[in-house]
Amino acid sequence: MARILILGGGLIGCGWAAAFAGSGHDVAVMDPDHSAAERLSETWHEAQPVMAALGTLREATVAPRYIGDIEGSASFDLVQEALPEDLPLKHRALAALEAWIAPETPIASSSSGFTPEMIAQGMTHPDRLFIAHPCNPPYLMPTVELVGQPGSPDAILNQAETLYASMGKTVLRMAKPMRGHLVNRLQFALWREAVHLVASGAASMADVERAVSEGLAPRWCLMGPGGVFHLSGGAAGMAGYLASLGPATTEMWGDLGTPDLTTAHTALISGMGETDPRPTKALAQARDLALPQVMRALGPIRTHYRQQGERE
Amino acid sequence: MARILILGGGLIGCGWAAAFAGSGHDVAVMDPDHSAAERLSETWHEAQPVMAALGTLREATVAPRYIGDIEGSASFDLVQEALPEDLPLKHRALAALEAWIAPETPIASSSSGFTPEMIAQGMTHPDRLFIAHPCNPPYLMPTVELVGQPGSPDAILNQAETLYASMGKTVLRMAKPMRGHLVNRLQFALWREAVHLVASGAASMADVERAVSEGLAPRWCLMGPGGVFHLSGGAAGMAGYLASLGPATTEMWGDLGTPDLTTAHTALISGMGETDPRPTKALAQARDLALPQVMRALGPIRTHYRQQGERE
Repeated sequence: MARILILGGGLIGCGWAAAFAGSGHDVAVMDPDHSAAERLSETWHEAQPVMAALGTLREATVAPRYIGDIEGSASFDLVQEALPEDLPLKHRALAALEAWIAPETPIASSSSGFTPEMIAQGMTHPDRLFIAHPCNPPYLMPTVELVGQPGSPDAILNQAETLYASMGKTVLRMAKPMRGHLVNRLQFALWREAVHLVASGAASMADVERAVSEGLAPRWCLMGPGGVFHLSGGAAGMAGYLASLGPATTEMWGDLGTPDLTTAHTALISGMGETDPRPTKALAQARDLALPQVMRALGPIRTHYRQQGERE
Repeated sequence: MARILILGGGLIGCGWAAAFAGSGHDVAVMDPDHSAAERLSETWHEAQPVMAALGTLREATVAPRYIGDIEGSASFDLVQEALPEDLPLKHRALAALEAWIAPETPIASSSSGFTPEMIAQGMTHPDRLFIAHPCNPPYLMPTVELVGQPGSPDAILNQAETLYASMGKTVLRMAKPMRGHLVNRLQFALWREAVHLVASGAASMADVERAVSEGLAPRWCLMGPGGVFHLSGGAAGMAGYLASLGPATTEMWGDLGTPDLTTAHTALISGMGETDPRPTKALAQARDLALPQVMRALGPIRTHYRQQGERE
């Protein structure tokens, strides 16, 4: 059982707290705003059935606790910073934190917009800071994107990777920081073409949605785009694909759209609500019920998929 | 039971034949190359268990039959053209076909590279030609991308949509042709950023693959990218997202990569085989076993997801 301090009791901080506590860790959430206490309690309440459905909820758990400030006796195995994306605010909070915690305590930032160097700037012990970016909500989504500073000690990142992996997380380790990390960059690339297709009048948003949900996503649950093109190359795999379809790929890439979001296009995209008339709150609830079911159903199928053919 | 003529007994033609025959239709595959007969028989053999696993195999089916040419008495409800992507070849084959079939018989082309106008050029009754592009293999993948010529009679497209939908297909109807249609354009957009992330040294191909399979695909099985951003806008939905995150989206889009495939990048991408050392044939077999399981598991989860909250 690790002792975790979450810095910031917002949406991400409370989500992280539930993820850690549900995995059997001892969690304190620090936020000067006392309203975080209620949010924390609500999130913990919502997260437990989700984690149970995922199979990531431990039997013995202790509810995460809210604290208004760090007492002198505080000792932690990991600090997970989950403050708003406001660099001076992060700097102030980390300076105050360093006065209390041991100099070797690792600090993971949940930031998606800043590099770890930017966040570590001005710290007394900057080497311990790295980024561990969750997808939202952290108790449901499996990926954690891990990236250190140039020259970050491997030991700190390895230790963090082990901890997140023990919580059932898929740790994606980046060799260098890039804005948006991996998941969001890939998501925004697909989203740009989706907007282009709708904005150029080629298809309705509903049909673009179905192209992704029906045509692409089920296969991507088994393999990423690399695997798809690897298989399209026949016996030679990716090298075969590059040799035979490389030029066609370059041509297709050149034809992809670069829409903007500042014109009448937005009217077409805003029609989204008509595709599914449920209020977004009901949609989000339905998603949070269904997504663990998808992930749970995928488990044994993926295991079988990965083992198929190994014995041949 | 519709009478279907498939023009061309290659990979796609035989796959289409199995999809139509498995759905209970009467199917003839025409190819002057007699080796197509064996391919057709093998494909029909492979397709039946896949369709059974998907739940799309009818109880009473008749094996698709190979024909070397069209006899005088031929009468069909639909011709599905599945010839190589060679425009003069398509033109010659369609001219020969029109001499035999009734002038009102609809003709669907499986082309992904040509517009329906280009294919219909020179036909005696060009209005009946439209594109119905499957994903490969057509008996497994659910999407069919449907696009007519400017001024194509709606009745022809509607009738085709009804037929494909009755086979369990997800028909994506495009208002105008675009190179690659929807599914491939979206796929290539994500693939471009995946290559960029690997080529720029930010992450391994294996981690990019997992970002898609673990981080993105399970949610995309429930909703497309539009749904994701619609929910990120809170109660205001897509309009809320556009108002609050529109500028950040534009900034992120501007930061996406435009890699090429002609440099040393390809060495990094070619490492794909190391991610999964199985031969591509074994991988493809494992995929064809697993993908129907994914799609079958998604069925009831999606139905429940779509109905959740409707009663609230």
